[in-house]
Amino acid sequence: MVGQEVALSSSDRQWVDRILGGDLRACTRLISRAESGDEAAIPLLRALYREGGHSKIIGVSGPPGAGKSTLVDQLIHWYRKRGLRVAVVAVDPSSPFSGGAVLGDRVRMLRHATDSNVFIRSVATRGSLGGLTRATGDVLTILDAMRWDIVILETVGVGQNEVEIMRYAPVVVILQTPGGGDEVQAVKAGMMEIAHVFAVNKADTPGAEKVAQTLSKMLAIRAESRPATEWRPVVVLTEALSGRGIEDLAQAIEERQAYLAQHPELEREHRERQLQARVAELASVELRKMIAQLTSESGALRARMNSLLDRSSDPYEFSRELLASSSSR
Amino acid sequence: MVGQEVALSSSDRQWVDRILGGDLRACTRLISRAESGDEAAIPLLRALYREGGHSKIIGVSGPPGAGKSTLVDQLIHWYRKRGLRVAVVAVDPSSPFSGGAVLGDRVRMLRHATDSNVFIRSVATRGSLGGLTRATGDVLTILDAMRWDIVILETVGVGQNEVEIMRYAPVVVILQTPGGGDEVQAVKAGMMEIAHVFAVNKADTPGAEKVAQTLSKMLAIRAESRPATEWRPVVVLTEALSGRGIEDLAQAIEERQAYLAQHPELEREHRERQLQARVAELASVELRKMIAQLTSESGALRARMNSLLDRSSDPYEFSRELLASSSSR
Repeated sequence: MVGQEVALSSSDRQWVDRILGGDLRACTRLISRAESGDEAAIPLLRALYREGGHSKIIGVSGPPGAGKSTLVDQLIHWYRKRGLRVAVVAVDPSSPFSGGAVLGDRVRMLRHATDSNVFIRSVATRGSLGGLTRATGDVLTILDAMRWDIVILETVGVGQNEVEIMRYAPVVVILQTPGGGDEVQAVKAGMMEIAHVFAVNKADTPGAEKVAQTLSKMLAIRAESRPATEWRPVVVLTEALSGRGIEDLAQAIEERQAYLAQHPELEREHRERQLQARVAELASVELRKMIAQLTSESGALRARMNSLLDRSSDPYEFSRELLASSSSR
Repeated sequence: MVGQEVALSSSDRQWVDRILGGDLRACTRLISRAESGDEAAIPLLRALYREGGHSKIIGVSGPPGAGKSTLVDQLIHWYRKRGLRVAVVAVDPSSPFSGGAVLGDRVRMLRHATDSNVFIRSVATRGSLGGLTRATGDVLTILDAMRWDIVILETVGVGQNEVEIMRYAPVVVILQTPGGGDEVQAVKAGMMEIAHVFAVNKADTPGAEKVAQTLSKMLAIRAESRPATEWRPVVVLTEALSGRGIEDLAQAIEERQAYLAQHPELEREHRERQLQARVAELASVELRKMIAQLTSESGALRARMNSLLDRSSDPYEFSRELLASSSSR
């Protein structure tokens, strides 16, 4: 099938064409279908993936309250002044405790509501089969095919899911705020490994410069044990509310983009790793569906589940058998 | 292979026997191997799963700062007074921002350090293939085979991962604190669906009774549209620091356990759903390994990755082909 076009029904073809033509309503509807895990949306997503590869994806993450939304708002503004079209994907972690906060923050972005060259969408997958990471990948596939110049991927950095999601972005901006010794935590948890730009936000707060200095020092030490050609994360001071430092931030982002353009082998490596993770994610969603279906059927699989329940078998064995048998279905 | 014993090397057999005999050092070492995703640990885990089914698992979750560790500490105390052996699995979300907090809290539990009938272990999986959920399942498999009477599974409730992890527990206690209107959030995000007991902690704080009342009212409304035989979540007021309300909490937990014992079909349903998720999780870890291995090899798969990169193919198609071909390897 390699190199062949995706076979689409004529209504699916029309839908794809509308999205490629920039129809926001068609785009929004397909995003909702992707979020809910609609099987029938897959052919459309397959066709759209093949039309992609245009948008520059920028990841923005940081702890709750660091000022992400305001900073993203300033970035939108910066890109719009340059005539670029900007889409924002805000990943809602659907936390049982903080759920809704991301959506609430969206209100702040309302000032772009009448600008048809700005598109803002939250992604959540409450209760559907498969994960948030899978749905986010779908949304990026759709926006990329629509040729948005800039796609900002915003997450509240609270868990492994968010780190996984940031893998989609070749440029990752991590917000830090003064106080709480966050910069030490960041290093501890391997945040250095995913960040390309650190924005120390709330630069007017006491201690901000100190945090920036400590971060820079840590990055310098880290750089000593790394190849000289490797990208060295940049630290900028920002004040999202006033817009101070946004120019520096935007330039740091462009430097990282230019660096990747100069090192196509690294960009390719990033794409490959990201595609590997994406394929694994999609395959595991398929697997979950398969297991749910199989175990609800009577017969051999029913017996198999019984052997797990009575512990004459084990889930480790079953998972391997399932993979081995998936081709026979 | 159903119904057969797991073939083990003699050293693996010895290891399993030591764990079944209650050897904490062997247990701790196997947990570390499981965390790091050690392939060679799987035969041991398989054998241990088949010896399990004894421990009562209790999930405890809630937002950071709600007082989970102190409450868990009180629960340990309560069960120890009754002569029960208690293990605690504290899931460290490895957050890039809050990472380490859970481990820090463990210090509070040091008062049980000299009690060999209490075992406390944090689980984290930074950087290993596969997820936290997988590793947590492995740890529960080990502890269950060791016949700990009570296994408390503690998570910081911050994301989907934590909700997934709570699926392991047939009894889930969710902590709430007064203030911040958390009770509304809880309902919004479907927290009602996973909680069996709500503990409104910090009962001495103004507003605690109000939160408990609001929660009870919401639960009553919800119950109207549910089958009369369904478990109705219980709300208790606790004050973890002083120990007030712990008796009520422990009783609510026992009521839920008694309810499940009286409704074996529900317990079985819970076990089946949990096993389905477990099998899917294990299979997706296998799949990830497979993809990483395949794409690092030269040849056909290399060409396949190229077709993804040049967009003559797509990851949706590739993931299905991969599942279909997994049996031929």
